[in-house]
Amino acid sequence: MRMNGKNVFVIGTGLTKFGEFYDRDSTSLATEALNAAINDAKIDRSSIKSAYFGFMISNSSPHSAFSSKCLRECNVSIPFTRVEAGNASGAAAFHQAYISLASGIHDCVAVIGSEKLSDFVKNGTIEKILGSTIDYQWEYEIGATLTSLYAMITKAHMREFHTTMEQLASVPVKNHKNGKENPHAQFRREIPLDRFLSAKRISDPIGRFDLATHCDGSSALILVSEDYLERNNGIKNKIPILSSEHSSDVLTLHHRESLTEFKSTVTAAKKAFTKVGIEPTDIAVAEVHDSFPISEILAIEDLGFFEKGEGGKATEAGLTQLNSKISVNPSGGLKARGDPFGATGIAQIVEIVEQLRGRADKRQVSEVEYGLTHNIMGTGALAYVNIFGQEEMEQ
Amino acid sequence: MRMNGKNVFVIGTGLTKFGEFYDRDSTSLATEALNAAINDAKIDRSSIKSAYFGFMISNSSPHSAFSSKCLRECNVSIPFTRVEAGNASGAAAFHQAYISLASGIHDCVAVIGSEKLSDFVKNGTIEKILGSTIDYQWEYEIGATLTSLYAMITKAHMREFHTTMEQLASVPVKNHKNGKENPHAQFRREIPLDRFLSAKRISDPIGRFDLATHCDGSSALILVSEDYLERNNGIKNKIPILSSEHSSDVLTLHHRESLTEFKSTVTAAKKAFTKVGIEPTDIAVAEVHDSFPISEILAIEDLGFFEKGEGGKATEAGLTQLNSKISVNPSGGLKARGDPFGATGIAQIVEIVEQLRGRADKRQVSEVEYGLTHNIMGTGALAYVNIFGQEEMEQ
Repeated sequence: MRMNGKNVFVIGTGLTKFGEFYDRDSTSLATEALNAAINDAKIDRSSIKSAYFGFMISNSSPHSAFSSKCLRECNVSIPFTRVEAGNASGAAAFHQAYISLASGIHDCVAVIGSEKLSDFVKNGTIEKILGSTIDYQWEYEIGATLTSLYAMITKAHMREFHTTMEQLASVPVKNHKNGKENPHAQFRREIPLDRFLSAKRISDPIGRFDLATHCDGSSALILVSEDYLERNNGIKNKIPILSSEHSSDVLTLHHRESLTEFKSTVTAAKKAFTKVGIEPTDIAVAEVHDSFPISEILAIEDLGFFEKGEGGKATEAGLTQLNSKISVNPSGGLKARGDPFGATGIAQIVEIVEQLRGRADKRQVSEVEYGLTHNIMGTGALAYVNIFGQEEMEQ
Repeated sequence: MRMNGKNVFVIGTGLTKFGEFYDRDSTSLATEALNAAINDAKIDRSSIKSAYFGFMISNSSPHSAFSSKCLRECNVSIPFTRVEAGNASGAAAFHQAYISLASGIHDCVAVIGSEKLSDFVKNGTIEKILGSTIDYQWEYEIGATLTSLYAMITKAHMREFHTTMEQLASVPVKNHKNGKENPHAQFRREIPLDRFLSAKRISDPIGRFDLATHCDGSSALILVSEDYLERNNGIKNKIPILSSEHSSDVLTLHHRESLTEFKSTVTAAKKAFTKVGIEPTDIAVAEVHDSFPISEILAIEDLGFFEKGEGGKATEAGLTQLNSKISVNPSGGLKARGDPFGATGIAQIVEIVEQLRGRADKRQVSEVEYGLTHNIMGTGALAYVNIFGQEEMEQ
């Protein structure tokens, strides 16, 4: 099942702090992340032949032109491509960058994810922006929001599998505990279970503290192909991308057979595991899409880490905590690290790469052989799954 | 200089009429174009494994979600990727689709370009939208528009190379003459030279009739790799993509060395010609970016069809007319066919493929061996150049 392409590696990672930065623009954030990734890769910036940008909101720093400004600030003069997949834009850009290296067209590319959402949160337009990741015509414009759709999905899961409010709340409790140890996270504090349970309901059963926050931040990666490594000896800390897959589902919830399984995640995960030739049980650490508590529960079920319907129980039992059965969202996830859409999918990869490199400090998972990232658009019309391995691993 | 990738072919083309369609939405237009391309390719729609969408404006039919709706209408359930590069979004999506086939990840993909701009023209926001293809901060927000920057570029060319108003006007005169024979064109009528010369100036020396119109329309292609052709005998009318290149320049005009040469076009063209191993004189027909009269003059110079500074004289002398030295914009170009940003880059490819297939009716160029397309963003921060050959051509 190996693709007829080149092997691809991550050799550099860069990340800004995530949070509210009213005094900085997108260019400044993206420039910081890209420069950090270039420095981490320890390569000459003239080696980079192409750049892929993932961001969703083009209004604040318009369209592709923003990519151009970021590259100029970083003193790299190369062609660039912007990929957009709503709140999964980062993973989408990474996937295209991966393909461009696998094709042999380039041997060294940069991937930059960036978003500045605080202004849209403040002016109250963020829910409308998120509305564009669901069916605008048949869902958003007639009153449904991303949050209310996830409320429906949560209720369906509670009904079908007897998932409890306590099980749901144990997702963000864990992620805040993890986020406390992540210097890049927006929220570095624990929130006790009862705060989640007693919080005001936004869209029942989703409470005020259940949502990942839409914030500002940028992330970047330097990727190279085997051709580059052959020509440049001694590149250290390179992490192989063993598979990068995406899949889709119909956009509109009422067209789907199930509310409690995201087919796009299931399909992308199957393709990814088949390509690598491993099982979900081989994954030691995963960064999954936890925009709502139910999102992480669906993810760990649909990715095959737990049986369908068992995600809530498993989380409550602590099986997804750091250094348990599988460490899920050691970074704090979208919930505690924060969710600047385009930056999120790439920040997930940064975390997994640092885990595989053994550089995750207090968040370090022991004995990591394989790591996985999972990023989706809206209610799963698109899902991206990537699997990474250890440096010495043969592909 | 051959890339280590699979050979890629266009096997199907689809195009809506371009114009003002207030009674249709983006999904309807894109669906018509994609269905037409699938029918033209004569393949089962289940063969298509991935779709690339190129569009710039996400407000009218929000973001990636629109792609999902178009695919559902066409009854194809596949992963999709949206690529945005301002008014060059169509060419950008095509380039990524090409790379995905060259990589061997897929063997059959669809490319869809689509835009609905009439509403933005009517409500007066189109110039602001175009402002996002130039430097928003240092150009648009302090008073420059895409049109006024092109006015500066036109004046610089007039000063440096004694290019005349008559030479400039001979570009749209030719393109309207060509567009008359294109059933998909927005404007199917000739406009005499004096109408251009006597028109009210919008931004001197650019007159009222000099701008390509921003309209509605969709275009689509079905692309396959050699793997697909090996498994499916008898696919007819396949046109090889001999090279697909893109290049960039700094965004801001005041950072550039020259106002009268677009470095991105020069670089992309050189890469494309080198890869194919041919000279600009080998190209019989080209679709180039003629958003303003000076755009086509710069293009035919920067692509190497004429010496720098000779573009105006060559056009006035008729050397770019149908079946002259080189047939430039036989479709009518952005000027007469109309310019729905994302749809434009792919419509250019549709025209060149139909020319190479010998199916361009009254616009048919005789003895076409090689054809070229050229699409740029804004004032050339990005340029895309593709070269196509004849069916039997060995790659």
